[in-house]
Amino acid sequence: MEKILNSSTGYIKNYIHYFHRRIYFADTDAAQVVYHAEYLKLAEQARTEMLRLRGYNYNYLKRNYKAHFAIHSLSANYSKPLKLDDEIIIETNVKSLSGASIDMEQKFLLLNNKDMHLASRLNIKVVLVNDKGILIRLPKKMFKELKLLVV
Amino acid sequence: MEKILNSSTGYIKNYIHYFHRRIYFADTDAAQVVYHAEYLKLAEQARTEMLRLRGYNYNYLKRNYKAHFAIHSLSANYSKPLKLDDEIIIETNVKSLSGASIDMEQKFLLLNNKDMHLASRLNIKVVLVNDKGILIRLPKKMFKELKLLVV
Amino acid sequence: MEKILNSSTGYIKNYIHYFHRRIYFADTDAAQVVYHAEYLKLAEQARTEMLRLRGYNYNYLKRNYKAHFAIHSLSANYSKPLKLDDEIIIETNVKSLSGASIDMEQKFLLLNNKDMHLASRLNIKVVLVNDKGILIRLPKKMFKELKLLVV
Amino acid sequence: MEKILNSSTGYIKNYIHYFHRRIYFADTDAAQVVYHAEYLKLAEQARTEMLRLRGYNYNYLKRNYKAHFAIHSLSANYSKPLKLDDEIIIETNVKSLSGASIDMEQKFLLLNNKDMHLASRLNIKVVLVNDKGILIRLPKKMFKELKLLVV
Repeated sequence: MEKILNSSTGYIKNYIHYFHRRIYFADTDAAQVVYHAEYLKLAEQARTEMLRLRGYNYNYLKRNYKAHFAIHSLSANYSKPLKLDDEIIIETNVKSLSGASIDMEQKFLLLNNKDMHLASRLNIKVVLVNDKGILIRLPKKMFKELKLLVV
Repeated sequence: MEKILNSSTGYIKNYIHYFHRRIYFADTDAAQVVYHAEYLKLAEQARTEMLRLRGYNYNYLKRNYKAHFAIHSLSANYSKPLKLDDEIIIETNVKSLSGASIDMEQKFLLLNNKDMHLASRLNIKVVLVNDKGILIRLPKKMFKELKLLVV
Repeated sequence: MEKILNSSTGYIKNYIHYFHRRIYFADTDAAQVVYHAEYLKLAEQARTEMLRLRGYNYNYLKRNYKAHFAIHSLSANYSKPLKLDDEIIIETNVKSLSGASIDMEQKFLLLNNKDMHLASRLNIKVVLVNDKGILIRLPKKMFKELKLLVV
Repeated sequence: MEKILNSSTGYIKNYIHYFHRRIYFADTDAAQVVYHAEYLKLAEQARTEMLRLRGYNYNYLKRNYKAHFAIHSLSANYSKPLKLDDEIIIETNVKSLSGASIDMEQKFLLLNNKDMHLASRLNIKVVLVNDKGILIRLPKKMFKELKLLVV
């Protein structure tokens, strides 16, 4: 836990990436909870840091494949609201891979003392898009490496 | 069409609400397309104006039921990217109702000359939450009125 | 007033552009007022529509000058909070011009019955940047045309 | 430097708070730089963590004074654009105090190898507002403690 809380890039253990974040005013709305669209922005941060730790940062993708990740589709379930100053952990893991897409699951966990409560769950299909906006297949090396992360 | 384009609250025809919007820098990201989370913010505007035209604005809900709408769950499919200055129409309609939730479908259509192309589709389950954050049933009057909108 | 309220692109009268907008959940924060950064996003919409009505939309700038507007600096004063569902008018006008920058003033006015109350004021210096991110001088035609708007 | 980079709450040295952050897609716009309003959201995070380290987190303010910080006014200068995946340090320090407001300066520094380049500068006047939205004076204890931080 200590390792997660003191890191701005998160921490990988048993194929799961853990990312710590506080909730700020910018994340919330007049219902005094985190606005539903803001979860997607926080999830991008967690995914990006997971992929960076695996070697796939923006610059690597751009330099090697002239490509970037884009969102094909997603679904979100909000079970427990998050509030100002809450401490959360975002768990990210790769669920499955096809030749042209990566399915990830991201869980938002509310930290309360030392317990963690599931607050919401995001399933997201990520694809690789070249600099003309055209969908490309996952490079073999990437496919192989990410395949190892599917439990 | 004229009626849609010159309105900031949108227009209802045959149970479907049409809402016109341009794409601004604030909606886009470094991939030079609309950022996936921003669709959810635009969709909130369209839903809010649809509900306002049906009589269910924020103040009415607050005054009569001490309640507001919250998002239970959603799914989004992004098929065609939207770009800076694009003109879009958001179509919103009620798909089904239960005693405690409203299922809506929202389509993002790209206007190009006089054609419209489906850019993305959002399905969203909306619930009613009281001022303590507790889920409440849809009031009978609201249920009856919105039931009429389900085609 | 009627003209302002029913338009999604706003309305120009006596060199001032008027843009109507409602406040949505996405604009607000847990203090139940509009979050200070969101004013800048709303202001971008108003400026963009003012410039579009004057002939300077994104595509025109891109096609003719391979350029886009960027923000050099700004100052904001928040005097009266804006709340969920508030109806506002954003007034935009050109205050002064130099060879390479445009100074605009934008006022956020809260509509209440038929009165308007100043809620906040934004002063913003806009520059023109080419596709390499380099500052360029305002084209003569643009300079002349915008100069006419300075009262 | 090591201490800054591996922390999600930042680090205080010689009265200045240092906060490390990466730039994500959500921060950027179609000009492929950080959108001007997003700086304000990042600055909120840095200020919040500085105040937390000093003992003034949201819950403390709420419990002890039924109050929260609000923005009175701000000015921003953007000198150097920030891009996707850039590593930045936000420096926050208290410039001056009055009985009812705190003036802070926040600098956005771009990390490049081991150099830091000023990218933008934010000056912000923060006030304390009670749960009815009314401005209140800074409590004596807070005033004394923050006064010590003014260099």
